[in-house]
Amino acid sequence: MKKYSEMTREELLAEKSALEKRYSDKKSLGLKLDISRGKPCPEQLALSLPMLDLINSETENFKCENGFDIRNYGVVDGIPECRRLFGEILDAPAENVIVTGNSSLNLFYDLIAHAMCHGLPGGSAPWCECKERKLLCPAPGYDRHFAVGELFGFKLIPIEMKSDGPNMNEAEALITDPDVKGIICVPKYSNPQGISYSAETVERFAKLSPAASDFRIFWDNAYTVHHLDFEGDMDEIPSLLRLAEANGKGNMVYMLGSTSKITFPTAGLAAVASSSANIADLKRMLSFQNIGPDKINQMRHVLFFKNLDGVLKHMKKQAQIIKPKFETVLTVLKNELEESGIARWNSPKGGYFVSAELMGGTAKRTVAFCKEAGLVITGAGAVYPYGSDPADSILRIAPTFAPLSELPDAMEIFCISAKLAALEKLL
Amino acid sequence: MKKYSEMTREELLAEKSALEKRYSDKKSLGLKLDISRGKPCPEQLALSLPMLDLINSETENFKCENGFDIRNYGVVDGIPECRRLFGEILDAPAENVIVTGNSSLNLFYDLIAHAMCHGLPGGSAPWCECKERKLLCPAPGYDRHFAVGELFGFKLIPIEMKSDGPNMNEAEALITDPDVKGIICVPKYSNPQGISYSAETVERFAKLSPAASDFRIFWDNAYTVHHLDFEGDMDEIPSLLRLAEANGKGNMVYMLGSTSKITFPTAGLAAVASSSANIADLKRMLSFQNIGPDKINQMRHVLFFKNLDGVLKHMKKQAQIIKPKFETVLTVLKNELEESGIARWNSPKGGYFVSAELMGGTAKRTVAFCKEAGLVITGAGAVYPYGSDPADSILRIAPTFAPLSELPDAMEIFCISAKLAALEKLL
Repeated sequence: MKKYSEMTREELLAEKSALEKRYSDKKSLGLKLDISRGKPCPEQLALSLPMLDLINSETENFKCENGFDIRNYGVVDGIPECRRLFGEILDAPAENVIVTGNSSLNLFYDLIAHAMCHGLPGGSAPWCECKERKLLCPAPGYDRHFAVGELFGFKLIPIEMKSDGPNMNEAEALITDPDVKGIICVPKYSNPQGISYSAETVERFAKLSPAASDFRIFWDNAYTVHHLDFEGDMDEIPSLLRLAEANGKGNMVYMLGSTSKITFPTAGLAAVASSSANIADLKRMLSFQNIGPDKINQMRHVLFFKNLDGVLKHMKKQAQIIKPKFETVLTVLKNELEESGIARWNSPKGGYFVSAELMGGTAKRTVAFCKEAGLVITGAGAVYPYGSDPADSILRIAPTFAPLSELPDAMEIFCISAKLAALEKLL
Repeated sequence: MKKYSEMTREELLAEKSALEKRYSDKKSLGLKLDISRGKPCPEQLALSLPMLDLINSETENFKCENGFDIRNYGVVDGIPECRRLFGEILDAPAENVIVTGNSSLNLFYDLIAHAMCHGLPGGSAPWCECKERKLLCPAPGYDRHFAVGELFGFKLIPIEMKSDGPNMNEAEALITDPDVKGIICVPKYSNPQGISYSAETVERFAKLSPAASDFRIFWDNAYTVHHLDFEGDMDEIPSLLRLAEANGKGNMVYMLGSTSKITFPTAGLAAVASSSANIADLKRMLSFQNIGPDKINQMRHVLFFKNLDGVLKHMKKQAQIIKPKFETVLTVLKNELEESGIARWNSPKGGYFVSAELMGGTAKRTVAFCKEAGLVITGAGAVYPYGSDPADSILRIAPTFAPLSELPDAMEIFCISAKLAALEKLL
């Protein structure tokens, strides 16, 4: 078979006719499939159920390391043993970690709200007083990050994503604008492309010299332990906080993480690691916002995992469940799309997504075809600021939640749809 | 014995000398006592431990009523069965309730941050743009409420507390100022006086006609089920939301509550009840802030309590533990202070505090005497905006956390200290 770009009009018409038949057959099955959101599947969740048995009415000791009763008020920054666990996960000293909330998104939102209302260390005014405030957004990226920035009135400035992270030349040029208050990154197994930033990229982040004295790097390391191949090829990236601290720039960094996709989404934990000054500032903020996080849930996690090694062993079991799903997605993409030459995609080593780059101007149409055939996928444009993909070409595939048995049908519909959209464009 | 005000100088000196001996004896015991914060005691917490057994690795069904898996993402406003439970607790329709967070203080903070950054239904601008913003603060009141208002740059305007709630004449006059954006209340078993607002007071709240179109009543009904005498005298107040809705003023009301002092502080649940427009607004905000609350913990609470009746049965057991503590406090106050005529105090029917009104100008000195003898009590002035009690006379006693056996010593030290401070003043 030839590439579409090399086909004659007659060949394209024949291909379209054959695909229309396949599409019609699939559609007639009346399927209801969903590969739209990065959710763990029930089998992944079941792996964490024993954690719920670890604290109960038979438990004799409810004291955490610093002597507080985990059932009562207090310990606004998290129990020491849990700060240590997240210190290992995020690669930061335990004393620079606060454990609170249930998602890194939640912490990002609360940090932005805090900066907006009260300002941050190093700054001279609350961010709400900066009327032209801007947020740098490496794109494609995480739609909910962009949505938070937009909600708080930031102008979202997209930055090109390269194979080793954001285009740092662009970033370095843009931060000379004092209205640029921050950048939001997913540095490892990025959403949606599965890209891990190179050591060089991370080092350039740690050396940034922004015009805004209260500029912040929101480093959402949500997928740091989410490898797919624990036997083989795993990405590791340096600790941005440690590198920035070495440059005297630790205040620039908030490293975020959570157990949302390690234990239970929304019933997990979240953590932030930062400089001592930022941690003191956050602890003060939290002392107003709350009288402490859910320490019982923190202790459950500590007892279940013990340390980073325990977390990695757990994630290896998750990988055994979801790796075949990624493989199915990639196999169908290869079988259905490779020869046509109309699409490229990544083969992630971790994280939750496969990102497909289709022929320009066909992503929206592809989503519409998918929907008509009973397949829900993330909307076209969602991975760009303001939901607007300039080339209308990127679509995000989330393979984890759907049963393995449904993925061949789902991906076949996806590929047929992408090809039909391309053929409409070419003809 | 005579009232101090009726004693001769010689009698006062003799009294002082006798008290100094008693004070010195107490001090020499080297006690470490604390009646400073409203925390449940371990025996109260133990009553909720069986709740932790209700969801575990043996649980077969993780679906909540609307079909969502409580272990996964989603259901940003709380599981339906838990919204219904809080609807009963707060006396509001379940569809007007959102369950999220872990304390009513936490919800108050997040609501203020939301109003500051994004504005509220009915308003024309975010509150941060109102430079002279003011918050009405019935006082004595809850120190952490005042602290949140101050943190967000509100001018705190104290309002007199009467025996049936805030002075509504004052409130009605003050809200003609469009910079007055809200009022923060603890309407039942108030902190610290244990006052429950009268039905007439609540009705006047429901009829307020503030100048600010986005004025809000933050109705922190934290102690609504915290009766001390389940056999006898319990306060009930009307549902402010229902009354306000009947007047077409539902948008003015956020009713807040939590299980902080029902199950586990910080590992409990919090809820807000409000008009449909406010609930829709909050649900939208939460869809950015979070991807859902801890639904596993919500289900634990639902399974444990089932309904309001289950909550009340549980609170009755708590009352059996803490009522003797309140009785001890009141007995010592009566025995030690009544005849002297230097103090008045309330006999609360519920809540967490006893509030003592000492001779003017002696509260700070009393706290200092207490501290020197090994007793920590809430700082003088804490129950007033800016920590400033104009008469320096109100002190808050929190009897629940300390062991019953320690309360006679603690209260004796308190009373001796109050009398010594009064005698210093009189002599």
